[in-house]
Amino acid sequence: MQVVVNAAMSADGKLSSRAREQVAISGPADFDRVDALRADSDAVAVGVGTVLADDPSLTLDSETRRADRRGRGEPANPARVVADSRLRTPPDARILSPEAETVLLATATAPAERADRLEAAGGTVVRAGEDQVDLPAAFETLGDRGIEQVMVEGGGELIYSLFAAELVDRLSVFVGSLVIGGRDAPTLADGEGFLDGFPALELVGVERIDNGVLLEYAVA
Amino acid sequence: MQVVVNAAMSADGKLSSRAREQVAISGPADFDRVDALRADSDAVAVGVGTVLADDPSLTLDSETRRADRRGRGEPANPARVVADSRLRTPPDARILSPEAETVLLATATAPAERADRLEAAGGTVVRAGEDQVDLPAAFETLGDRGIEQVMVEGGGELIYSLFAAELVDRLSVFVGSLVIGGRDAPTLADGEGFLDGFPALELVGVERIDNGVLLEYAVA
Repeated sequence: MQVVVNAAMSADGKLSSRAREQVAISGPADFDRVDALRADSDAVAVGVGTVLADDPSLTLDSETRRADRRGRGEPANPARVVADSRLRTPPDARILSPEAETVLLATATAPAERADRLEAAGGTVVRAGEDQVDLPAAFETLGDRGIEQVMVEGGGELIYSLFAAELVDRLSVFVGSLVIGGRDAPTLADGEGFLDGFPALELVGVERIDNGVLLEYAVA
Repeated sequence: MQVVVNAAMSADGKLSSRAREQVAISGPADFDRVDALRADSDAVAVGVGTVLADDPSLTLDSETRRADRRGRGEPANPARVVADSRLRTPPDARILSPEAETVLLATATAPAERADRLEAAGGTVVRAGEDQVDLPAAFETLGDRGIEQVMVEGGGELIYSLFAAELVDRLSVFVGSLVIGGRDAPTLADGEGFLDGFPALELVGVERIDNGVLLEYAVA
């Protein structure tokens, strides 16, 4: 499986303001690049915090790209994956819309009634791990379901956990030309943070897009 | 006065780990660039958090650059400025070493005995503001002392406060190829954070240095 993390951050490393409201960080050229990356993926993954804050549908913007996928015998949209330990995704969240498959990664102890409601809303619950989602095991289950390319769109908690689990192969960061600030604002990689053994990256691409710059890394 | 913020951050926007221990983010080419920028400045400024965490001397590494400054009739090293509301800088901090002048920016209510001890150790205390340092007033005082070019080296609290006070003219960010992570790790711009009216930057330079990339911005 290939795991690509893709995110847009401010010049000071923030994904949004401390109010967790979406901030316009990138522009139309980067949106199109992200849509193309989604179209090339078998699944698009986010953490439950992103679902609760932004209620994204994570479907493709481009009808042409949906048609191309259908032409290749694939579903019109990539599957959606939510890392959601305690199954806090609301059953009416847009990420459960019928346009694509949705898999919720939960712990063994997440309430069965929430799982039932989410499955009734069209989701599939995959359980792995006790207190936290066991991401390596959960991603192996995704692989068993035929998911070979996963694009991770945030937030910072999920991105950190994936780096900590050594599951990330590539990182693409659009750095927007603004300052958001805030010691409590979400960053590209939150979580506990590393104290040593910092994941090393190799800078493989630098490109100006919109009014910012896209940095592409391979994980060393 | 021209205020240039210069910092090195990880690909996820962190200046150091949550333990606030220094992390090797950049390399020799960037260190040399920073030393050249210091040599071109009348003063180098940091927040007291950086003094307490790293105990930097902020003097020039290069003897040639010190000699060049002397040849131009300037002090061998740029002055050092510490934004230190309550005068928490220890009197034996390296930033008070005799190799350069040191100005401490404090509030009107910072204890007089601390000011006396810091002045006995060679520092000059400038007071501006009541609860927090009034940065525009304090920087105006620096200007009156002949300081025309200030290089700000961090940390994230001071950088945020300077953006909030609209005092920053340029921002140089070296983005190192590693992930530090941590919701409590210091970032390039901490403080309260903006909720709207995000300071807009103009990307004026992108250059690969060491194993990372240097992004240079003008403040719009």
